[in-house]
Amino acid sequence: MSDTETLIRDILAGQRRALARAITLVESTRPDHRARALALLDGLRAKGGKQALRIGLSGTPGVGKSTFTEAFGMMLIGLGLKVAVLAVDPSSARSGGSILGDKTRMERLAREANAFIRPSPSQTALGGVARRTREAVELCEGAGFDVILIETVGVGQSETMVADMSDIFVLLLAPAGGDELQGVKRGIMEIADLILINKADGELKAAAARTCADYAGAMRLLRRRSQDPDGFPKARTVSAVTGEALGDVWADITELADWRRTNGHWDAARARQARRWFHEELRLGLLAKLTADPSLAGRVARLEAAVERGEVAPAAAAAEALASLASTQ
Amino acid sequence: MSDTETLIRDILAGQRRALARAITLVESTRPDHRARALALLDGLRAKGGKQALRIGLSGTPGVGKSTFTEAFGMMLIGLGLKVAVLAVDPSSARSGGSILGDKTRMERLAREANAFIRPSPSQTALGGVARRTREAVELCEGAGFDVILIETVGVGQSETMVADMSDIFVLLLAPAGGDELQGVKRGIMEIADLILINKADGELKAAAARTCADYAGAMRLLRRRSQDPDGFPKARTVSAVTGEALGDVWADITELADWRRTNGHWDAARARQARRWFHEELRLGLLAKLTADPSLAGRVARLEAAVERGEVAPAAAAAEALASLASTQ
Repeated sequence: MSDTETLIRDILAGQRRALARAITLVESTRPDHRARALALLDGLRAKGGKQALRIGLSGTPGVGKSTFTEAFGMMLIGLGLKVAVLAVDPSSARSGGSILGDKTRMERLAREANAFIRPSPSQTALGGVARRTREAVELCEGAGFDVILIETVGVGQSETMVADMSDIFVLLLAPAGGDELQGVKRGIMEIADLILINKADGELKAAAARTCADYAGAMRLLRRRSQDPDGFPKARTVSAVTGEALGDVWADITELADWRRTNGHWDAARARQARRWFHEELRLGLLAKLTADPSLAGRVARLEAAVERGEVAPAAAAAEALASLASTQ
Repeated sequence: MSDTETLIRDILAGQRRALARAITLVESTRPDHRARALALLDGLRAKGGKQALRIGLSGTPGVGKSTFTEAFGMMLIGLGLKVAVLAVDPSSARSGGSILGDKTRMERLAREANAFIRPSPSQTALGGVARRTREAVELCEGAGFDVILIETVGVGQSETMVADMSDIFVLLLAPAGGDELQGVKRGIMEIADLILINKADGELKAAAARTCADYAGAMRLLRRRSQDPDGFPKARTVSAVTGEALGDVWADITELADWRRTNGHWDAARARQARRWFHEELRLGLLAKLTADPSLAGRVARLEAAVERGEVAPAAAAAEALASLASTQ
């Protein structure tokens, strides 16, 4: 039995340590690791396990994301489900920190046998983080998890990226007090299926209800998406601390997932995501060819700088770079 | 004097027929035309004319886009400005129609010596439309136009594409009556600098004011963008028919443009757009290599289909396609 086969067997047997090792493998950029990672993903795919429910979850620091994830995850565990939590934080390399880096933030969930928590990889390039996270999602799905929560702090394009590997996307917000609306990042309304105003407890309860009404109103101004049944996207208040409405959130998510499955949107979205990742991998692979040769990479960088200064037309610069590629092969 | 040099001279001399011929050239996919188009763009760029103000304008059929463009364009002409109008309609190939196809919709503007109107090219692939429109914008800028209006009906990703070649993006909406809010496409609030509620005249005046307040409220929920001064993005009512507030729209646009120029956002945005188009051209060129060979193109298509069905991991399929590319060279 090869290393890869052993790893697959252990992952399927539910060994969390094997899953963690497999994720480390897909996070590696070493060519030999990369080859093994691809073999591993292919091997797991051949086993054809069931699909997990992939939930993207975004929220800036301070909205109570860890508290929500722990409370929501514990509720799912209580329902007999296996829950994996992955994190994407493109800023972690810069700040030195990492969301979920401190597992003690989710002490109870981390102790559960049916839970698996993986902090964000420390990578600077979002492209690298994207590939690694998407493959980690596949590994968790192959390992038989029912629900995979993919968390992000929403820096740069990370929300779009997470939405591109999720079946359902949830945005977590804090109540806004009076005029000091912090505001959601533009574009987020395009991808959010559910907007949750957290901290709807104690003194903030009324503010949370007002904020919720504001977002519900704003969403009514947006065009209906074909992948949404009546009533979605939805805004609601929750409290991760008291646990209020966590059951309703799960009911919303399952209602939406069932509707999309029944109406063909689920499979269509998964196929679309797979196609997009395939093209992204193709693009990265082709670009790698362009930059593998240092002199060629230098030429592309100089052309890019000239394009930015407006000295060369983008199409002419691209033609020149592509001609260089052909002449070196 | 070469053909290209003659064409450049005639374009710089303000001959609209020469400009029209140049745009036809960049719209062509024939390799020899493509080479001449690149030489033409390079030659014009070397002349280093002044920058035009590029305004993206989106609005679904029925909001009065042609009427607005004609009225707004005539006002600019009256201010002594040269105005070019380009259109992007990815649906025109399908529907057989084309926005601006019927120039009689802008009868007065079409007759003005300082105006140039170009209908949407009939192309099915958005990538092709994007390249051609962007290069047409460059040609109009090289020809010395002060303002370039780039219109789109907002199908698919066309708004993002137009925003990627505009300095300022304007969304035109019709007043909504009571509950029947038609809604704007998700993602549009991310790129709109100005939301105009048209038809603020006669019976619809009150409805337009209400719709305007709704959108102004929704925009206050969104995060402030670094490229915006106080008060932007802005929503206002206009009437293309009575001409009301058209002067205010121009004042808004010039205020925003001046602020961005002064604060470095203008140059930064142009550089970012150029870099993005360069990478897009690189990507298209690299993909063209992959699909130039029919047997290779067939293999990529089969891999893509397998990825969509979930039979192969995207990364593994991409690796296989790239390996095929290497072995054929």
